[in-house]
Amino acid sequence: MTAEQFADRHIGPDRDDERRMLQAVGYDSIDELMDAAIPEVIRWHGTLDLPEPAGEREALAELRALAGANTVAVSMIGLGYHGTHTPAVIRRNVLENPAWYTAYTPYQPEISQGRLEALLNFQTMVTDLTGLATANASMLDEGTAAAEAMTLARRASRSKSPVYVVDADTLPQTIAVIGSRAEPLGIEVRVLDLDVEELPAEFFGLHLQYPGASGAVREHRGLVQAAHAVGALVTVAADLLALTLLRPPGEIGVDIAAGTTQRFGVPMGFGGPHAGYLAVRSGLERMLPGRLVGVSRDADGNPAYRLALQTREQHIRREKATSNICTAQVLLAVMAGMYAVYHGPDGLRAIARRTREMAARLAAGLRAGGVSVADVAFFDTVTATVPGRAAEVVAAAAQRNVNLRLVDADRVGISCDETTTVAHLQAVWAAFGVPVFDGDADVALPAALRRESDFLTHPVFRSHHSETAMLRYLRRLADFDYALDRGMIPLGSCTMKLNATTEMEPVTWPEFAHIHPFAPESQTAGYREMIAQLEAWLAEVTGYDAVSVQPNAGSQGELAGLLAIRAYHASRGAGHRDVCLIPSSAHGTNAASAVMAGMRVVVVGCDADGNVDLVDLDAKIDKHRDDLAAIMVTYPSTHGVYETGIASLCAKVHDAGGQVYVDGANLNALVGFAKPGRFGADVSHLNLHKTFCIPHGGGGPGVGPVAVRAHLAPFLPGDPGAAHVDGRPAISAAKYGSAGILPIPWAYLRMMGASGLTRATGVAVLAANYVAARLREHFPVLYAGNKGLVAHECILDLRPVTKATGVSVDDVAKRLIDYGFHAPTMSFPVAGTLMVEPTESEDLAELDRFCDAMIAIRAEIDKVGSGEWPAGDNPLSNAPHTAAMVSADEWPHPYPRSVGAYPAGVRPAGRYWPPVRRIDGAYGDRNLVCSCPSPEAFED
Amino acid sequence: MTAEQFADRHIGPDRDDERRMLQAVGYDSIDELMDAAIPEVIRWHGTLDLPEPAGEREALAELRALAGANTVAVSMIGLGYHGTHTPAVIRRNVLENPAWYTAYTPYQPEISQGRLEALLNFQTMVTDLTGLATANASMLDEGTAAAEAMTLARRASRSKSPVYVVDADTLPQTIAVIGSRAEPLGIEVRVLDLDVEELPAEFFGLHLQYPGASGAVREHRGLVQAAHAVGALVTVAADLLALTLLRPPGEIGVDIAAGTTQRFGVPMGFGGPHAGYLAVRSGLERMLPGRLVGVSRDADGNPAYRLALQTREQHIRREKATSNICTAQVLLAVMAGMYAVYHGPDGLRAIARRTREMAARLAAGLRAGGVSVADVAFFDTVTATVPGRAAEVVAAAAQRNVNLRLVDADRVGISCDETTTVAHLQAVWAAFGVPVFDGDADVALPAALRRESDFLTHPVFRSHHSETAMLRYLRRLADFDYALDRGMIPLGSCTMKLNATTEMEPVTWPEFAHIHPFAPESQTAGYREMIAQLEAWLAEVTGYDAVSVQPNAGSQGELAGLLAIRAYHASRGAGHRDVCLIPSSAHGTNAASAVMAGMRVVVVGCDADGNVDLVDLDAKIDKHRDDLAAIMVTYPSTHGVYETGIASLCAKVHDAGGQVYVDGANLNALVGFAKPGRFGADVSHLNLHKTFCIPHGGGGPGVGPVAVRAHLAPFLPGDPGAAHVDGRPAISAAKYGSAGILPIPWAYLRMMGASGLTRATGVAVLAANYVAARLREHFPVLYAGNKGLVAHECILDLRPVTKATGVSVDDVAKRLIDYGFHAPTMSFPVAGTLMVEPTESEDLAELDRFCDAMIAIRAEIDKVGSGEWPAGDNPLSNAPHTAAMVSADEWPHPYPRSVGAYPAGVRPAGRYWPPVRRIDGAYGDRNLVCSCPSPEAFED
Repeated sequence: MTAEQFADRHIGPDRDDERRMLQAVGYDSIDELMDAAIPEVIRWHGTLDLPEPAGEREALAELRALAGANTVAVSMIGLGYHGTHTPAVIRRNVLENPAWYTAYTPYQPEISQGRLEALLNFQTMVTDLTGLATANASMLDEGTAAAEAMTLARRASRSKSPVYVVDADTLPQTIAVIGSRAEPLGIEVRVLDLDVEELPAEFFGLHLQYPGASGAVREHRGLVQAAHAVGALVTVAADLLALTLLRPPGEIGVDIAAGTTQRFGVPMGFGGPHAGYLAVRSGLERMLPGRLVGVSRDADGNPAYRLALQTREQHIRREKATSNICTAQVLLAVMAGMYAVYHGPDGLRAIARRTREMAARLAAGLRAGGVSVADVAFFDTVTATVPGRAAEVVAAAAQRNVNLRLVDADRVGISCDETTTVAHLQAVWAAFGVPVFDGDADVALPAALRRESDFLTHPVFRSHHSETAMLRYLRRLADFDYALDRGMIPLGSCTMKLNATTEMEPVTWPEFAHIHPFAPESQTAGYREMIAQLEAWLAEVTGYDAVSVQPNAGSQGELAGLLAIRAYHASRGAGHRDVCLIPSSAHGTNAASAVMAGMRVVVVGCDADGNVDLVDLDAKIDKHRDDLAAIMVTYPSTHGVYETGIASLCAKVHDAGGQVYVDGANLNALVGFAKPGRFGADVSHLNLHKTFCIPHGGGGPGVGPVAVRAHLAPFLPGDPGAAHVDGRPAISAAKYGSAGILPIPWAYLRMMGASGLTRATGVAVLAANYVAARLREHFPVLYAGNKGLVAHECILDLRPVTKATGVSVDDVAKRLIDYGFHAPTMSFPVAGTLMVEPTESEDLAELDRFCDAMIAIRAEIDKVGSGEWPAGDNPLSNAPHTAAMVSADEWPHPYPRSVGAYPAGVRPAGRYWPPVRRIDGAYGDRNLVCSCPSPEAFED
Repeated sequence: MTAEQFADRHIGPDRDDERRMLQAVGYDSIDELMDAAIPEVIRWHGTLDLPEPAGEREALAELRALAGANTVAVSMIGLGYHGTHTPAVIRRNVLENPAWYTAYTPYQPEISQGRLEALLNFQTMVTDLTGLATANASMLDEGTAAAEAMTLARRASRSKSPVYVVDADTLPQTIAVIGSRAEPLGIEVRVLDLDVEELPAEFFGLHLQYPGASGAVREHRGLVQAAHAVGALVTVAADLLALTLLRPPGEIGVDIAAGTTQRFGVPMGFGGPHAGYLAVRSGLERMLPGRLVGVSRDADGNPAYRLALQTREQHIRREKATSNICTAQVLLAVMAGMYAVYHGPDGLRAIARRTREMAARLAAGLRAGGVSVADVAFFDTVTATVPGRAAEVVAAAAQRNVNLRLVDADRVGISCDETTTVAHLQAVWAAFGVPVFDGDADVALPAALRRESDFLTHPVFRSHHSETAMLRYLRRLADFDYALDRGMIPLGSCTMKLNATTEMEPVTWPEFAHIHPFAPESQTAGYREMIAQLEAWLAEVTGYDAVSVQPNAGSQGELAGLLAIRAYHASRGAGHRDVCLIPSSAHGTNAASAVMAGMRVVVVGCDADGNVDLVDLDAKIDKHRDDLAAIMVTYPSTHGVYETGIASLCAKVHDAGGQVYVDGANLNALVGFAKPGRFGADVSHLNLHKTFCIPHGGGGPGVGPVAVRAHLAPFLPGDPGAAHVDGRPAISAAKYGSAGILPIPWAYLRMMGASGLTRATGVAVLAANYVAARLREHFPVLYAGNKGLVAHECILDLRPVTKATGVSVDDVAKRLIDYGFHAPTMSFPVAGTLMVEPTESEDLAELDRFCDAMIAIRAEIDKVGSGEWPAGDNPLSNAPHTAAMVSADEWPHPYPRSVGAYPAGVRPAGRYWPPVRRIDGAYGDRNLVCSCPSPEAFED
């Protein structure tokens, strides 16, 4: 009477498939395969100590119970997190739609035009509202956006001062994140109350909040001029909703704007995920960190979108990088952008006016009742003074199901938003003990602060205001794209596997979605219990002693881990240890993170087999023995190999006084079979959006928890709201980072259990070896470990065929689109190669379809090689083929249309057609356009 | 501080659009237009007495409160409704996906291949499991399926006996529905306990339940032989899950199988909607009522699906029809079919075995505790005898949150299902006062009853068992189709308007989804309150006094309304009145329903303007004055015109002692402006799936409430569970019909309010007149009313151009696909025309896109007319163009590919491509194939 096992739904190959795959690879069982593949020195032979796997309904029922232990109160706390109404059409058709949430980062722009357009809408929304020239495609949250603004200011400033001035009326968690980022970089943060304190004589940057955390809206023009006078740059952390009514920062000469777009329809989710934003004035765009969408053109000269200026990104610049940001919050940015599309400028203004009106009524009522309210201009937030009574008022409001902000013993902050009703105001008045107010309130803003300029003038913000129109726009964009719901995305290192519906459903339950990160603990018991369980399970899976889920991306997990190492050394009087060894095969982000953690990067070479060169390692250790802080390695390596030297590597570094950081990017090849915390590592970050099934969402959200052994536990991230108290670093703005999506990995772990997780790892490794076995005779498989086995991914070396035929890795990647696939990872970790990670979720039919396509492509390459098809005009060089191309009246190519359109095995019905031909990225970088092009640009 | 109005999201045109549309039509305001269009004699000038419109969040909050007043208990009542786990991937990607739920009935098969394949899966599942030759694409529920089986048996039987035998162990609600259907047709139903009573000497049909309502599984072979011996046909109402273990009816010579597929993943929903099924042995397929999907071929000879044997359907056969069924439960049939695809034969068997095992354990435990359990073979249901204590046991179980079936004072029925757990068994044992049982239970079924044959052998049932594979299959099928989420579906009379997400969301809330129709009233207060409010609002909107939501399709509403008229006449001693006047323009279903209600149909002609010919009406009334039962008219007429003679028509019929039935199909043109119950009608049925926003779901679910004036109220449908007590007819198996989707119209009415509903009607009429005004010079608009205005739809007369050029209405309909539209209604109500209903939800941009396409098509027609393009080979005759066609290596057509592929205004990127070319329906009817074709059939 056993219930159905979720693992059988998650894992693609069934037992029959498994048998056939094992046969092809030459093993009798998965256990035997894994015994051969994984070096015994790291192999762990136990059974994970996790609860017995729950069925899908059982897991949902447990999550319902956890959700039920949260209390959804009316949140009037503010501080950057506001109640908002997610339009139902956006919730259902974006946040709950696999076509959006299972999409990958748009590195293959031809099959990502839908989400690129959505991100361009987001960028246009941000630039229009802030009045600045260029915005990126989102940041991880407001705190990290502000921290990136600080480092950007430092790079751009002509001042040599190390001082960064932060106005005291900035969100406390932003101050905490800025502080944590500044310290290792040698930046001196001065928090000043600029209402009363003077600016210092020298400083490179100034951070202002608009409106302030207190609600006060200040005229910043003078400060901007003063800062510019000493060569400093000015960042304004601005509320985009307020900017529909308030003069935008760009109009008073501000250099940078940063903030969050959470209140544009993205639920609070106990702190995240939401899309932060970062925008800069003209002249700074090439210094902007993060993802940036721009307009370029395709092979036919038609406008086409793609990620712009990628050469400035961390994975290219490595230790020369100025930021380690490698993801964005795409899914949330899409939602926020669509919120603006759906409401349009008039709708947003109406929401802002109503919010402002609520706050004005609230203030008027308090004043009428004799409560002192700060006499400043405000938008949505007021600060009331009730000497000695603040806690009492906050408690009285909580009893009425309304959360207020306890500023200090005397002051209470109250913030209105689009969900505020008159009943909420009445509850607040009652909590203050003042009568209901129904007089008039002055809602006019001071003329000097009022916005006069137009915004969101592009037609996209004026054409989709009925639900029908919005629904169709979302469908049309989704249909442009290729996501996991169409077929395999065999991206090495990116682990594009099933994001199960049962894992996703709880994310939109109100009891998880509508919790403010600073809600009283009494309201968040369910969340905290779920997170504690998740952290414990992750510790068990990885063999570490403590886990923090705060980092909201893998890159942030790296930073958190390195900062823990740094603090650990400092705590032992070894603060001078600052060398971080990084193998040449490492992901570039590793190096960028080390730099941000104040470390010096020393590169260790690889040997001919792609493994860390232990001789070079010895040499580097010797050279830096006294300064050695850490080594960062990925395991299995970024080459997709279980390196046998790992244990010895760990020992050498430890012997030299260093710490071992194992990048958990490839944990999908270890779970249940090896534990980094047991085979010698001190710290790892995980990628919950990879191995633990949080969907990629087109390039975010991610969650990058950091896991450590006990000696590093005291240095894990702290509570950003209390960061100065406990001395731990603030990595994200919210204590639990992107808490709102943690039900996903919780459900995955709960439903898979020890047996399911272990089998998933085995099948993932089997699948990679199956692909390697089938393709080896057509493309060399570049690296292998024990017995010629790869781990969970394999590298197909195209360099010989490229050399022989001119057909590039790009050509193959684009041709795969014609075959109905997303390309594998291109030219990482080795230029000129493709790295394939099939994951455990692809069944044998799909694996074979992929192998068949690669074999057919190899035959096509040979036709180019043999001269049957000319080098510059063949199905590979012309790929991907659009419907427009293959149905054009003229067909000037030396191969039939049908070969271009429907290569071997591709059925015409249901064939995925990319909307554009191959995109010229360089053209777009030379002619940078990062907001919505006019409709005329698309006319023939 | 007003919140956003939902009406502004539901209604496509904004105020600017409205002004431009009014200008084109020549009126200054919608009020002025409506004053001109609607005859003053029916015009109602009041304001609907409905609650002030709620915002989307407010409406959801109210529905949450109503949902909260329901109690979700563990249901072990059985009787055809069982707990079931909807696979999350199916819930999210079918039931919650607009690509599936906003699709229309697949009359245009080229753009419906996805749902047609899904229905073919359903049909194959039913035929495989029942062991019969042919199944249709679903019935409305088990009760109506059984009633249709009865009339089918009567038609096919060589017996002249009027007797239909029903075994007493049949579901009580099925017996009720059979009884209500039999009576007007002169069929004599005899309910016999065939365990002890003999079959009569003569009868035309026999209905058996398998397993019986009591749970007993009987060997029916002898009864089948006995029935066949007297020329009777045998129907077995069989549980499809049981048939995975039990010998199927087809293997013992049964002629017909009927039943429900609810437990295949479709929530109980307090009674519906679910897909019923009907299957027949070879030889009866052409007598099968309802929709039937079959395989045919397209213009390239490739296999293609379409609705088969349409000439036998009610809309063609009118008063010669033998059934009035004109819809199915497509969305639910898709779900049930996908449940079988996802689980496959082994999965279904495992679910059945586990269910059987639970029941066996339950019985063993009861027996071990000294409770008497009927000593019969059973599958999932046992009947326990506790003399005098049954009510007490049922109450004790209810206290443990478990609902059991109270059979009578001494007997309790307990039914297991896939959701049953050991904890549930323990609750039942406790309710009976017996100890927990943990011994062994005998789970073997008697050999004679065991299934030996294989089933679901088609690869589709063996290829999609991982969630990834299932997700992609659902996406692929959805992408084949054109639904409202892609663009306009301008179907006259079908009112394809917005189905808002906020209306849809509550449908999948557990508190609405998981309620058994026979749950105790104490658990259903929320449902009943919601339904009472909905009925009251519908009465207010229509001007009637009472409403019943029981009919689960418009056709069933018609039957209910006519049966009310029949019963009313009978109650006044005028039972002989049996003539039903029906205008020649009426929908064929009207006539079919009249026949089913035991009436004689007399057709009334139409005049040259398309209106009911009042002279002919007088003549027909005169002729049938003494026998006149009713007139059935549609208003506005099926010609889309507000006929001015309606009030006079009503008076004439009333004067002759007849009742007036106004078909509410076109209520979208009346709401807020006229009330049928106030302008002379006695009864109407409504179509909640049209005017009131229940989505079409690809051809069901529908809800067709019947609304009556007070004198007919006593004759509204009764409770099928208690039909013999209150004497009212049972129209559907469940008291509130498809209760599970009633939150949709409730939310629509609640959010629109009087102002929104009235504006929607005005904009719908404005849109139709706008289209008529723009297209009039290109295609004659066939009928019009006052001042040349149409109502909410307009008929474009293609007969002159067809005559002149040979281009048919079919050609235009298919060519519209190339332009990115679903075709308008073809050749109804007038052959050779297209009827366009734009609805209020299409904005001006989409209306113009449609008009532009029609004008461009007119220019294309002219090129055929002028001889520029040959008659048999032009973009119209070759439409729709598939991607395969326009990208073929050869292009033998006399117009460029680009003209075929991308006609005026169509952008290549995102162009919707149908998966097949034009389909040859007749070929498929001649070579009838109604189950999944082998994969080889699709190979080139």
